[in-house]
Amino acid sequence: MAVALIVLAAGKGTRMASDLPKVLHRLAGAPLVWHGLRAGAALAPELRVVVVGHGGTEVAAAVREFDPDAVIVRQSETLGTAHAVAQAVPALAGFAGDAVVLYGDTPFLSEETLGALLAARARADVVVLGFEAADPGGYGRLVMDGDRLARIVEAKDATDAERAITLCNSGVVCADAGVLAELVAAVGCDNAAGEYYLTDIVGLAAARGLTATAVRCAEAETLGINTPAELAAAEAAFQTRARADAVARGVSMPGPETVFLAYDTEIGGGASVDPHVVFGPGVTVETGAVIRAFSHLEGCHVSRGATVGPFARLRPGAELAEDSRVGNFVEIKNATLGEGAKVNHLSYVGDAEVGAGANLGAGTVTCNYDGVSKHRTEIGAGAFIGSATMLVAPVRVGAGAMTGSGSVITEEVPDGALALARARQLTKPGLAARLMARLRAGRTGRA
Amino acid sequence: MAVALIVLAAGKGTRMASDLPKVLHRLAGAPLVWHGLRAGAALAPELRVVVVGHGGTEVAAAVREFDPDAVIVRQSETLGTAHAVAQAVPALAGFAGDAVVLYGDTPFLSEETLGALLAARARADVVVLGFEAADPGGYGRLVMDGDRLARIVEAKDATDAERAITLCNSGVVCADAGVLAELVAAVGCDNAAGEYYLTDIVGLAAARGLTATAVRCAEAETLGINTPAELAAAEAAFQTRARADAVARGVSMPGPETVFLAYDTEIGGGASVDPHVVFGPGVTVETGAVIRAFSHLEGCHVSRGATVGPFARLRPGAELAEDSRVGNFVEIKNATLGEGAKVNHLSYVGDAEVGAGANLGAGTVTCNYDGVSKHRTEIGAGAFIGSATMLVAPVRVGAGAMTGSGSVITEEVPDGALALARARQLTKPGLAARLMARLRAGRTGRA
Amino acid sequence: MAVALIVLAAGKGTRMASDLPKVLHRLAGAPLVWHGLRAGAALAPELRVVVVGHGGTEVAAAVREFDPDAVIVRQSETLGTAHAVAQAVPALAGFAGDAVVLYGDTPFLSEETLGALLAARARADVVVLGFEAADPGGYGRLVMDGDRLARIVEAKDATDAERAITLCNSGVVCADAGVLAELVAAVGCDNAAGEYYLTDIVGLAAARGLTATAVRCAEAETLGINTPAELAAAEAAFQTRARADAVARGVSMPGPETVFLAYDTEIGGGASVDPHVVFGPGVTVETGAVIRAFSHLEGCHVSRGATVGPFARLRPGAELAEDSRVGNFVEIKNATLGEGAKVNHLSYVGDAEVGAGANLGAGTVTCNYDGVSKHRTEIGAGAFIGSATMLVAPVRVGAGAMTGSGSVITEEVPDGALALARARQLTKPGLAARLMARLRAGRTGRA
Repeated sequence: MAVALIVLAAGKGTRMASDLPKVLHRLAGAPLVWHGLRAGAALAPELRVVVVGHGGTEVAAAVREFDPDAVIVRQSETLGTAHAVAQAVPALAGFAGDAVVLYGDTPFLSEETLGALLAARARADVVVLGFEAADPGGYGRLVMDGDRLARIVEAKDATDAERAITLCNSGVVCADAGVLAELVAAVGCDNAAGEYYLTDIVGLAAARGLTATAVRCAEAETLGINTPAELAAAEAAFQTRARADAVARGVSMPGPETVFLAYDTEIGGGASVDPHVVFGPGVTVETGAVIRAFSHLEGCHVSRGATVGPFARLRPGAELAEDSRVGNFVEIKNATLGEGAKVNHLSYVGDAEVGAGANLGAGTVTCNYDGVSKHRTEIGAGAFIGSATMLVAPVRVGAGAMTGSGSVITEEVPDGALALARARQLTKPGLAARLMARLRAGRTGRA
Repeated sequence: MAVALIVLAAGKGTRMASDLPKVLHRLAGAPLVWHGLRAGAALAPELRVVVVGHGGTEVAAAVREFDPDAVIVRQSETLGTAHAVAQAVPALAGFAGDAVVLYGDTPFLSEETLGALLAARARADVVVLGFEAADPGGYGRLVMDGDRLARIVEAKDATDAERAITLCNSGVVCADAGVLAELVAAVGCDNAAGEYYLTDIVGLAAARGLTATAVRCAEAETLGINTPAELAAAEAAFQTRARADAVARGVSMPGPETVFLAYDTEIGGGASVDPHVVFGPGVTVETGAVIRAFSHLEGCHVSRGATVGPFARLRPGAELAEDSRVGNFVEIKNATLGEGAKVNHLSYVGDAEVGAGANLGAGTVTCNYDGVSKHRTEIGAGAFIGSATMLVAPVRVGAGAMTGSGSVITEEVPDGALALARARQLTKPGLAARLMARLRAGRTGRA
Repeated sequence: MAVALIVLAAGKGTRMASDLPKVLHRLAGAPLVWHGLRAGAALAPELRVVVVGHGGTEVAAAVREFDPDAVIVRQSETLGTAHAVAQAVPALAGFAGDAVVLYGDTPFLSEETLGALLAARARADVVVLGFEAADPGGYGRLVMDGDRLARIVEAKDATDAERAITLCNSGVVCADAGVLAELVAAVGCDNAAGEYYLTDIVGLAAARGLTATAVRCAEAETLGINTPAELAAAEAAFQTRARADAVARGVSMPGPETVFLAYDTEIGGGASVDPHVVFGPGVTVETGAVIRAFSHLEGCHVSRGATVGPFARLRPGAELAEDSRVGNFVEIKNATLGEGAKVNHLSYVGDAEVGAGANLGAGTVTCNYDGVSKHRTEIGAGAFIGSATMLVAPVRVGAGAMTGSGSVITEEVPDGALALARARQLTKPGLAARLMARLRAGRTGRA
């Protein structure tokens, strides 16, 4: 059965104390809206429709970065969840199958839960996702009659018996796309807020002789984010879980509470991650790699046996082959290090290809930017780059070649050649002592 | 009504396991005694008297750094709190108004509480600050008779009924300065310790027909610091509150528990602060600025749209204009970066002025110290400093000028000029291979 | 009375989700097996026998690194704890005294507890270490009859009354070595698992008319490690205690939860350690030293008054004399800094000796590696090394000598001399402007 996702992402997030549209706030390195899209992707939806509103252009751009084929529709007025879904209906034209409505500010729904939601369509026309609330308070209650969802009651309209119900409404629903379209079209706005509520489709379904049921998930999965404090709590919850997962899979991590993981971080069991490490998006670390303290990784790949840090920064496009080594105060960007290559100290390697077994001395810099464009540096296998060599790109240092320390290399160094660009040392006996005496006298004179 | 503060800061802090005078231990980047002075400053006190004793010279210096006009008096013997206040009395000569007695080791009193204390003088001659103790234990109890403070009973002298009282004495008092002077002069030392207790003034006031009352605050506000563990707990309490405040104001902070703020850190809502950032004193970060992970800031100002880090250090006097950029392994000290200026990698910029849009390559160093004095570097707008350029100060690089990478610049570079100080590259074919073979043979030979 | 330790370290650690033998997982920077050896060392054992099995070669190497004289015996099949002890018996030949059986995966036994265990041998032939379990669950129960240990009952064989006992078996035992040998030889394997259990020696002792007793310790001391989560919890427990100890001894530590200490870290009271500091093994920091944020120390010594960091890395062999200073983005390896010497910015100092009061400018590098061997650098007292000086080792810079910034120093600089290796600055008016225009045009042309 084909599936369509409808993700509601139009909210402003007034309580977020920020100009950023709510669903663009980041959780685990990704905009909130990506989390819902990722969870929904497990259903292999043939159609993804995202309803945007506040900050619609920015939200649309973020959605397309994740899923270039998503259909973006705009809700120009904020008239409630049923109204939002109604904006998505035209995009479902010609689609036959089930539609699932998700929320851009509800990042923790699991694939298992969404699978269960979809599976429940076998036994009812409309499926609502419910959660057992620790404190049901103001949530809408799901009134069940056996496996049948009789109706959803808002807390303020509930009888005492209904108020005692702890199964609450998450807002997530699933129905045949055509049925959903028909039901949301029938929703009215005859209520205090004058809004169109998606909740009403359960009652409308019953009136049409359609059946409804509910599927349960953990309350933590339906956590919505409305304030900075809730976002901080969600981030903490994500990190706690991701760290525990990594530890359980055998990642050696002596200070997990100081390691920050991104939504897509992949670390092989048997890798080791010291305290104080930050993973941005797009990082893969293989089994047996070692990430030392105070390292910062984004968009990079660290192979088995490689060591990174302490105090290393791997930026997007850094690709470290097996047993390579990136040491302290070293930045690698858009560059590959071959097997066993070493960049141990105080270096910047950007837009470069470093051959296997090459050794870059302390203070090596690939001068990749001329003020206008970026250029590439190639360093051959087994090359030995002397300390503080400036490699003015585009430039190539051949395999087994060497550069003298302090050299500015502007021309190709052939394989096996030695390149130097260095003034001869000139030593002036006694001059340091005289200079220092003069400087000291000068200072005294000025004082 | 004029107000005088009397801050008692004479204690040794025997239990602090340190030679440092107690009130100089730091909390949130400031000596303990500053916190009391800061809270008291909200009363706009016309006179501030600080009573110092142990380590008096150092304490006096720290107080003057915060408040150059504070009056310092010395308590040469530690004979109790009333004795300490008595040392301050001569400094009040000629002052008419209320005096408030605070403690240099009690950092968390809020401005609201001090305001309420002062306001309560309208209804009594002597006002004592009390707190509802979770565990009253050995604290003195405030025995109230309606709104009237009847007396303060030491725990060891209390009846069972009095011991059941949970309103306890913080030691903070407020009274007319003249009345306070008269009362402390009357305090005796006829007790087990032979000390003069400020507490006794309540009884002495009653004996003179004066009235007393109490004002309540949260117990956390009156937390005094006597041990390293209490200091650590106070720091943790400060950080927890300051981080939550920042998050609530819309500072994006995904790992607040790894961010350390100072007593005076100012971060605009909408700024973003990554995990693992340390703010020392004197930092202002504007809305929309981005502070990336592993950054360390002290005494600096980061404007809207500027980005700092990861792995950046801003030292006192760093001033970053809008949209400027300080990248990894970069130190900025006593230097301004103009709008859009960039120092992205491995650089030291000290005692310098960098123009708008200038770009400093990796490994740029301002050689500001000649072994005796510091000198300044000027870099013009739009200048392009090649990697590993040494700028030997005093020196000026003009607007739109360039330096070649690896150059040592000792003379002015005019606007639009290019300066190079570089040896020509000399490439010797095959020499690297021969050298490496010789080195390897040598090692084998020696082994 | 002579003492022998028997440490059982043969386990595979199947549940650790790692290929590493269980006792080689690290806790506080040391393999688990070291912790037991360290605790046992307090008994001044004349003989240490370690029973290895899975990964025996690696475990043996780790044990010898800690204690070169330990006797390693191999258990080739995993047939239970009594069988493991039996493998150690031949190594006890000729030894007269008490033997204590410890476990390589139980790192927290205190010296006090082991002392009490040994002392209890005065009143019984066999002494078992017990702990009061919060949740006795599946632990074996110690059935006491007054001070006499009547027997150990496995949980599954216990009566209701026995199950109510909370004093549980830690597995640690002490007995005369000859008695222990005789008892373990008598243990059978007639049980469901077909294994030889050390526990059985208590019953066997009673049958021989020998007495047994128990000594109690805190449950936390007997924590064994079987899963990554337990290892993480043990690390957290170690850190929490070690941080609190440091704070209580007067180490100023405003963010203790972000400081990681190793099993042997020594920090003098009155030293100060900022947030975000990692101590690897082998570090001593004296009173009055200051370790600033984001510093990483291993195998080094920091003297009184010295300052390290922020962003400093001290590697093994770094020795900082009094009042010396290592600043940001600086790496020191196998090098001594004399009194008051300064390496403030962006430098690598390896295999070097830096004299008192010397000042190394930003970007100084000791080029200690020629691609094959490491060489030493000597810098004399009071020398002034200009920024970005490359010191090509082996090389010596004399006392009071100077080097010009950007110089590559390959020959000795005598005391008081100035050495330069620098090309003359060449300034070409207007060329930067023309170059930049050409580059921009080129980019446009290509676009």
